[in-house]
Amino acid sequence: MNNRRGSLLVISGPSGIGKGTVCAELMKRCERLCFSISCTTRPMRPGDEEGVTYFFKTEEEFDRMIREDRFLEYAGMYGKRYGTPRAFVQEKMEAGMDVLLDIETQGALQVMQKAKGDVTSVFLLPPSMQELHSRLIGRGTETPEKAEMRFKSAYNEVDLARQYDFVIVNDRLEETVEAVKAILEASHYRPERAYTHIDALKKEETNP
Amino acid sequence: MNNRRGSLLVISGPSGIGKGTVCAELMKRCERLCFSISCTTRPMRPGDEEGVTYFFKTEEEFDRMIREDRFLEYAGMYGKRYGTPRAFVQEKMEAGMDVLLDIETQGALQVMQKAKGDVTSVFLLPPSMQELHSRLIGRGTETPEKAEMRFKSAYNEVDLARQYDFVIVNDRLEETVEAVKAILEASHYRPERAYTHIDALKKEETNP
Repeated sequence: MNNRRGSLLVISGPSGIGKGTVCAELMKRCERLCFSISCTTRPMRPGDEEGVTYFFKTEEEFDRMIREDRFLEYAGMYGKRYGTPRAFVQEKMEAGMDVLLDIETQGALQVMQKAKGDVTSVFLLPPSMQELHSRLIGRGTETPEKAEMRFKSAYNEVDLARQYDFVIVNDRLEETVEAVKAILEASHYRPERAYTHIDALKKEETNP
Repeated sequence: MNNRRGSLLVISGPSGIGKGTVCAELMKRCERLCFSISCTTRPMRPGDEEGVTYFFKTEEEFDRMIREDRFLEYAGMYGKRYGTPRAFVQEKMEAGMDVLLDIETQGALQVMQKAKGDVTSVFLLPPSMQELHSRLIGRGTETPEKAEMRFKSAYNEVDLARQYDFVIVNDRLEETVEAVKAILEASHYRPERAYTHIDALKKEETNP
């Protein structure tokens, strides 16, 4: 057992690729997995709960967290800001939990730089661009214009896949989820995890 | 499905760590896994079968294979030589099989250099050096002097673990085998496997 510490699992890919569905399924199947909880400057709404849906911050608090380098990534969206707090992720990992981060491609790259040794990153690709197009239009969560805009930017995003640790063509949900489960399990055996154990072995007497 | 091509799975670690047991168990549990078959210059013995136990080569043939860079690694042992033929491994991988290589630490490092993009390497560590000592003496396959010699060299070998893709403390067989299975599964999703698919996506029309 050389995997007491948890991993930070980053799941990314273009809009419409199905990150949310994959993550929800993973949460069901992985015992020691928890979602990362973001900080936000948006006001609380009915149903929100501090530290459950988000950590709610004032603009000033958010600014200070940026200055103190306390985010693994942050971004402004629709005037309100969102960020992944480093401390929350670290605490969960120290406690042996794996932390799941469902995040768009720019945020993912920030996290991969900031938390290098701790991150295992997965990029989801569509079977075809046509398929991605259908999914984006089909989900109907936004105007057709916005969906088309997202689709266009997906062409640039797929190139980013090369910078990730693992890449999965998200064709069948079942296969994708099992692949990510294996990737998460494997991440517990990265060599850095064993450094302390190696040092301990070297310190043992040569003549037992 | 972006994993048509097989992986080359290298299992290594100091003498007595239990590579053989782990590999035998893996072979039972993984459908598309086959052992790498070595070339050797030792004479055939009863029970040997060409292309099954080994590929039998004359000294001249073996020399030529070295000159033509047709080994992923080779070594001389007891005057007779053994080597891992690159072509055999490549053919199996092209056919979608994963190839398993149970190999001592020096050979493993050669393979890792020669077949970089294709190799997924796993190093097995003992829970303690004392435990490794018991296993080496306990298996009684060689003189106590030889076992002690192997044990001494294990102290240097454990440092090599840092150069591998994954490191497992081989404490309980069941846990080790499941960890290697996950590592093998994850290896099918390395980003290089998806490069062709990424190129294909980029070539699709922007207006489906």
